[in-house]
Formats: sequence, structure tokens, C-alpha cells
Amino acid sequence: MNTAIVRFIIGHVLRIEGVLLLLPIITAVIYQEPQGFEYVTVSLICIFLGTLLSIKKPKNTVFYLKEGCVSTALSWVVLSVFGCIPFILTGEIPSFFDAFFETVSGFTTTGSSILTNVEALSHTSLIWRSFSHWIGGMGVLVFLLAIIPLTGGSNINLMRAESPGPSVGKLVPKIKSSAQILYLIYVGMTGIQIILLLATGMPLFHTLCMTFGSAGTGGFGILNSSAASYTAIQQWIIAVFMMLFGINFNFYYFILHKQPKKSLQIEEVRWYIGIILASILIIFSQIYHSVGNVERAARQSFFQVSSIITTTGFSTVDFNQWSSLAKMILVTLMFCGACAGSTGGGLKVSRIVILLKSIHKEIRSYMHPKCVKKIKVDGEVLDHDVLRATNVFLVTYFLIFVASLFIVCLDDKDLITSFTAVAATMNNIGPGLEKVGPAANFSEFSNLSKMVLSFDMLAGRLELFPMIMLFHPILWRDTIIAKIRHHSKAA
Amino acid sequence: MNTAIVRFIIGHVLRIEGVLLLLPIITAVIYQEPQGFEYVTVSLICIFLGTLLSIKKPKNTVFYLKEGCVSTALSWVVLSVFGCIPFILTGEIPSFFDAFFETVSGFTTTGSSILTNVEALSHTSLIWRSFSHWIGGMGVLVFLLAIIPLTGGSNINLMRAESPGPSVGKLVPKIKSSAQILYLIYVGMTGIQIILLLATGMPLFHTLCMTFGSAGTGGFGILNSSAASYTAIQQWIIAVFMMLFGINFNFYYFILHKQPKKSLQIEEVRWYIGIILASILIIFSQIYHSVGNVERAARQSFFQVSSIITTTGFSTVDFNQWSSLAKMILVTLMFCGACAGSTGGGLKVSRIVILLKSIHKEIRSYMHPKCVKKIKVDGEVLDHDVLRATNVFLVTYFLIFVASLFIVCLDDKDLITSFTAVAATMNNIGPGLEKVGPAANFSEFSNLSKMVLSFDMLAGRLELFPMIMLFHPILWRDTIIAKIRHHSKAA
Repeated sequence: MNTAIVRFIIGHVLRIEGVLLLLPIITAVIYQEPQGFEYVTVSLICIFLGTLLSIKKPKNTVFYLKEGCVSTALSWVVLSVFGCIPFILTGEIPSFFDAFFETVSGFTTTGSSILTNVEALSHTSLIWRSFSHWIGGMGVLVFLLAIIPLTGGSNINLMRAESPGPSVGKLVPKIKSSAQILYLIYVGMTGIQIILLLATGMPLFHTLCMTFGSAGTGGFGILNSSAASYTAIQQWIIAVFMMLFGINFNFYYFILHKQPKKSLQIEEVRWYIGIILASILIIFSQIYHSVGNVERAARQSFFQVSSIITTTGFSTVDFNQWSSLAKMILVTLMFCGACAGSTGGGLKVSRIVILLKSIHKEIRSYMHPKCVKKIKVDGEVLDHDVLRATNVFLVTYFLIFVASLFIVCLDDKDLITSFTAVAATMNNIGPGLEKVGPAANFSEFSNLSKMVLSFDMLAGRLELFPMIMLFHPILWRDTIIAKIRHHSKAA
Repeated sequence: MNTAIVRFIIGHVLRIEGVLLLLPIITAVIYQEPQGFEYVTVSLICIFLGTLLSIKKPKNTVFYLKEGCVSTALSWVVLSVFGCIPFILTGEIPSFFDAFFETVSGFTTTGSSILTNVEALSHTSLIWRSFSHWIGGMGVLVFLLAIIPLTGGSNINLMRAESPGPSVGKLVPKIKSSAQILYLIYVGMTGIQIILLLATGMPLFHTLCMTFGSAGTGGFGILNSSAASYTAIQQWIIAVFMMLFGINFNFYYFILHKQPKKSLQIEEVRWYIGIILASILIIFSQIYHSVGNVERAARQSFFQVSSIITTTGFSTVDFNQWSSLAKMILVTLMFCGACAGSTGGGLKVSRIVILLKSIHKEIRSYMHPKCVKKIKVDGEVLDHDVLRATNVFLVTYFLIFVASLFIVCLDDKDLITSFTAVAATMNNIGPGLEKVGPAANFSEFSNLSKMVLSFDMLAGRLELFPMIMLFHPILWRDTIIAKIRHHSKAA
């Protein structure tokens, strides 16, 4: 393995984190909060360490999927470890396990919290917590690709490892331009949401935090009531933007390039909209009777569906109180997730579509054994490898899921709590049901469970394989063998 | 589609059912119960109708997988419809939906019951209920193959559609002999269990019912306490035999042919034993403290693990009261299921093994992209088609699961009840948790839910595809088109 390039990338990531910490520092200055000093310290450490690691440019900048996966997984772990230090230093989240969980939850855009009283946090820490969603939403390595030139390398592997979804391609031939376009769309849409929310009279601080949360499909609120205390119009805006950020960014790229027809042809987006509409209809019919008001019932259904399918996790109502069917739909949406190539989590709509089509094909071939049918997505025949990878992904997913569930069950909470805790973290949603429902939090879990759930959040955000590789013995055995060979050659 | 052969097979199945109804009739004579008359009526109807349908031998006895699937699915539906009539006529289960659910539960060896008081049933109905497990365990079509000659046809398809597991092969080149060997082993092992239980002093009636239940891995008890009121030694015997009936029957075939080495080499069996031991160990450690007695804790863990992994469903204790981890293990075992080629249900250990290996391979190919590795089971390279079919099976399985769950959720029971109700029926286990736990039953569900759960039991027993095909529009469209063509040719 090319360890030099991994070191180089981690160094850059740390430097970027140091710079990003400026936002909470500025907030501290504005609100005159003493917590700013701890943030300055951590920022300086990040920049110093990062420069140290990245000062020596590696001779060989070629790197393969293996290096891509390892750099990505390590970057996210490093990002979270350093990102949680301010919470510990300021004493706002004194336990390392809690602070780490909270930060991982932020960067992975999960939004699960161990805090029992969010409103007790300083503005400085609140904005850092929400800002981490925005950073994690599009991905820090995609950002890296947009700004530094990694020439000569197969750096598509870096993007592939970090971007959500089964078939992330390049928008344009050059990786750097692709990454820049993605960030441009991301920043643009974030800007529009900020302007709209400000226009409704929401204070700037709230606007920023809520926008970061919905853009990254994160879900950290800054009020104990999540989004329930905002006005109806504000809730509608947030709901619409959550949904928009869950759409495959290719959609916006085509629109920008004046190809609206092409953008509407993306099958995944059509399915995504269809699933949302169907879910809203069913939930509306379930809750309308008890809510008793069309607009409010529509708003509550739309907000919750939009929040859960995009894996954001904001809530305007305690859906733990809803009927079994409505809850079941939310649990299913948790697994379904948003579009590939968006900021959302979950299994991704495109995977579900591929799987549905492969079942349909299998049943057909049962009935017409001699008929060879190909699976098509967006009119193109699906590569056999994509299909197999999708199947393997799903199975790996369920295995990690079950293994995590076993460990979390050691805490002896009820099965719904344990089940939805794992589902909500692994799909990067935030709240689950029962003791981790929208009106509760994750603080009651043991440190072991918190570490497992943190792993699940990272595995969910990075689409499993980078995190598995990081802990897989083969990787380290190979690396050690290569090192030994290298040394014996030198000697 | 060759409808003549389907009619012919259904006819034979009905005749066999008519003959099998002799066992409850004999029981009625012994216990002098009036219910016997209704059983005689139904038996005569079955034989009459069956003879009518099968009197005309079809000209063309060749049939393909399509005919195999349809015959199998229809046979099981017909078997259940006629099998439930005695319960309705005797007034012991007056509602059709309840009687159908109970009979499907019997034939599919599920063991879920809608009865609140089993002990109120007549001996006649009790033995018919338990006997249906034994019939369904090995399968009525396998029995058919063992006794009638379907020459010239690809009748392996019939066996393949009914037998559990992904890769059921022929034991010997001739199908008829394979089917006979299977039934020979089945009858032999049933005989041994009967003798052993009688030796412990268990009354003959109890012995027969409990043996039918464990041989078919069904789980209908004849006491409200399921298996809790039997002696320790009787519980041990039942537990051991449940486990034995969950082993791939190839294992016994090899032993019979004095190839013990070959039988121990079956990878699936080794995994099966491993999973059982690991589960027992964990559950033992969880319950030992509260049970306080090594033998009893060991017996309770072994009995419940054996009962759930083989999808039998007998219980000696209300495991709904166990810790979260112990319950979680039972839920996982529900999905895991027994070996392919046994009488047990669930996903089957071999499928799990194939999936685990394919994940391992995928991770390796991530790290060594150029290394092509084949997946091996029992030392032989796995056919690519088997792997794909396994993946598709799993996904189809989860889709049916989720769809059923949605409908069952309409009853607005708690999520654990709904979830484990679907899991317990689809995997042919019997009891779930909470309101369908071992101390409760399925009577509270709506008729719609009962029909859905009945479908799930049949789909689970017949490995999904036959039941899906039966309800798939393509099948009927094709058949109608063929009929029209045939008529227009004749005209």
C-alpha cells in the first residue's frame, strides 16, 4: 500500500479542519463566548499537525481503490477525533465517548445526539455541531479534490469511496472539475435556503444551523423541540429543501446545463418522488383523523417523510405516538434512504430499484427459461458487476446490522429501541423509536454501544467497505509484508 | 402450460389426502368421538374428487419448472383448503379464516395457532392437526414421486419446487428412488423417536403428536403449556430429535451407505452444529443466573435453540421474558433456519454460508482487484447461477416480508408483535414475541392479516417462487394466450 499518499491526504484533511474551525471561532467573537479559546487551540493544533504530515509530497501519487478506501476511512476517523476535542475541552460534553459519538454523528450527517438539553450548549459549540453536517454532507475529500491537484493518480477512487451510492460516475471527464461542480451546486442551494429562511424572519443563527442540517441531511437541531417550534411556512421550506438535497446531484447538473428533459429521465429521481408521494398519502390518511386539520396533517406527513427518507432526522412531531402502519413506513424509509449522489444516507433508492428489477427478471426467467433478459436502468443495460456488488452490499449491510444489534442488545433495552437505534445510526438518520425516539436521545447507552453505533454511522456514511477494510486483518498483513520486503531489499 | 398434468397431480394429491384422513378416523373410533363422521365425509369427498381429476392420464407427461411450481403451489393450497373442512364441520374452529390459517400452519410445519385453548379439541382433530406437520415436513409431492411413476417427465422439477433449500440434488440418479430413500429415512427416524418417547412412559397419543411435531419441525402441541409439562428426559429427547430433523438428509444417506467421513464433510452441517452450540452458550450465560440450575438452564437453552433454529416452535419456557440479547439471538435463528434438504424452514444455513463467502470474496477483490477467486462449498466451486439465485432469493424474501408487515401493521398491534408474527410464519416457526409469544396465539389478528400470514407460511415452506408464480399475472396471461391459440388452430 502507498502509505505516503495516505499520510499526505490525512495531513491535508487536518489542515482543512483547522480552517473550518474558523466558523465557530467567529461565532465566539460575535457572541463573546469564552469557549472560543478552546476552538482556537484545536484549530492551531490541526493546522500544525496537518502541515507536518503534508509538507513532504509523496514521490508516487498514483493510488488505487485500496488507498482510496483507507484514506477515506482514516480521514473520517481523524476528522471526528479532532472535531470532538473542543467539546471535551470546553467541558460541554466531558466524556470522550459522548463527544466522539456526537461528532461522528455530526460529520456523518446522522444527527443522533447524546445531549439531553441541547439549549445548554454555547452558540460556538452549536454552530460547530451543525456545521459538521454541512462539511460531511458533500464530503471533505470531495472538497479536497476540488482544491488540490492530485495529478497522475487514479483519484476517482477517492471520490468513489466517499460519495454515496452504487454507481457514482464523473460528471465531466476531469475529476477536479466534477468535484468543483458538485460543491458549486451544494453552495448555491445552501445559499438559496438561507435567503428564503431569512425572508420568513428566522434569526441568522437559527437559519444557518437549520440550513446546515438540511443541506447535509444531518438533523442536529438547536432547540430541544427540534423543528416543532418554527412557523408553518418555515417548516414547509425546510421540508422542501430536505427533499431537494436528497435528489441525485446529476439532476441539478443537467438543469444547469439546460437539459431539463435529461434530468427528468433519471429513473432514480422518479422513483424517489414516487416513494415520497405514496408514503405521504398513507401517513396522511393515518394521522388526519387525530390531527383534524388538512394543512397541518399534510405538513406533518410531508415533513416527517422528507426528513426520514433523506435521513435528515428533524422532527416537528413525536412520531413515536403514530399508528403502527405509519411507524412501519418510517422504518422502511429509514432503510430505503435517498438518491445516490445526494447528501442523504440509507441504502439508496437506486439500489432498491436495481434489486426490484433483478427479482422481476428472475421470476421471468423462471417462466421463460430460454429467454435471456437484461436489466436496464435509465435505458442502459446494467453491468453485471454492478448487480453483483449491489447484492453483496445488501448482505454485508445486514450482517453488520445484525452484529451491531447483538452488541447493543447487551444494554438490555427493549428490542424496538435497540433495533431502531442501529437502523437510525447506520442509515445516518438520527432519531429512532421508543427510547431513542424523536423526543428522546442516545445518552442512556453504554460506552461500548456508543462506539459500535459510532462505527455504524461511519460505515453507513462511507458505504461499508472503507470501514470494513480499515479493520480487516488482510489489509494490515499485506502492508506489513510489503514493509518487511522493502526493508530486506534495502538491506 | 401443460394444464392436464397439473390437474392429474392435484387429483393424486387429493386422493392421498383422503387416505391420510384415515388416521384421525381411526383415532375417532378408538376414543369413540362423534367428530369421526365429519372426517369420514371429507375423506370420501377427497377420494371421489381426486379420482375424478386423475382418472384421465395426460397424453403429455413432460413438464418443466413452470408446471412444477404451479402444481406444487396449487397442491398445497388444495391440501389446506380440504384439510380445514373437518375443523369447520365439527364446529371446533367454526370460522373459515381461522380453520384455513390453522391448517396451513399445520401443513407448512409452522405451528402458529389461533386456538386459545388447545386442550378443548377432540383427540380426532388434535391428531389430524399434528399429523399435518408430519405430512408437510417431507412434502406430499415427494411422497407422490415415491409412489407413482411419472415417466418421461423432468419430474426433478416437482421435487425441486417442494424441497427446501438452494441446491437440492438427486441422491441417486432415479428420482423415484431418491424420493423413496428420503421417506425411508424420515419414517425410520420418526419410528426411533416414537420408541424412545414411549420408553420414558409418555402415553401413545402424546408420543405420536409430539413426534409428528418434531419430525416435521412443526410445533403444534396438544397441551396449552406446549412442551413445558413433560419430564426433563422427554424434553431432552424432543430437543435432540428436533435438531436431528433439521440436518440435511444427505447426512443420513451417507451414514446409511457407510460413508461417515463423507457425511461429516458436509459444510452446511458443520456450520449448523456450530451455530447451535454458539447460541446455546450465549443464551445459557444469559439465563443461568435467573434459572440457578445448570441442568435446567442447559435444557432450556438447548430446547429453545433447537426448537427455533429448526423452526419447530415447541417451547418449555416463556422466552418472551428473557433478556434482549437472548431474544435477539432467537429472532436471528428464526431467520437463519435449519439445513437445506431437511424438514426445517427459514432461510437455510447453506444460503447464509454462501452469502458469507460471497462477502468475504468481495472484500478480498477490493484489496486485490486482479485476483480472481472462486467461492467453494464442500470443496466444489459454486456455480455462478446458484450464487445469483441465492442473492435474488434473499431480496425477494425481504420484499415479501416488508409487504406483509405493512398489511399486518394495519391491525395496529405493537411493532414487535407484527414483526415477529410475520417472521414466525414466513420462516415456519410458530410463536413470535409479545402478543404472539409462546404464551399467546394469533387469534387476535384480523381476517386479512390471517390470510396474509397464511400466504407467508406457504411462501416460506415452498421457498417463495412457486407461490409468487401462482399469483403472477404473466403466468395466467401466457396460459390464456396459449389456450386461445390452441382453439383458433382447432377452428
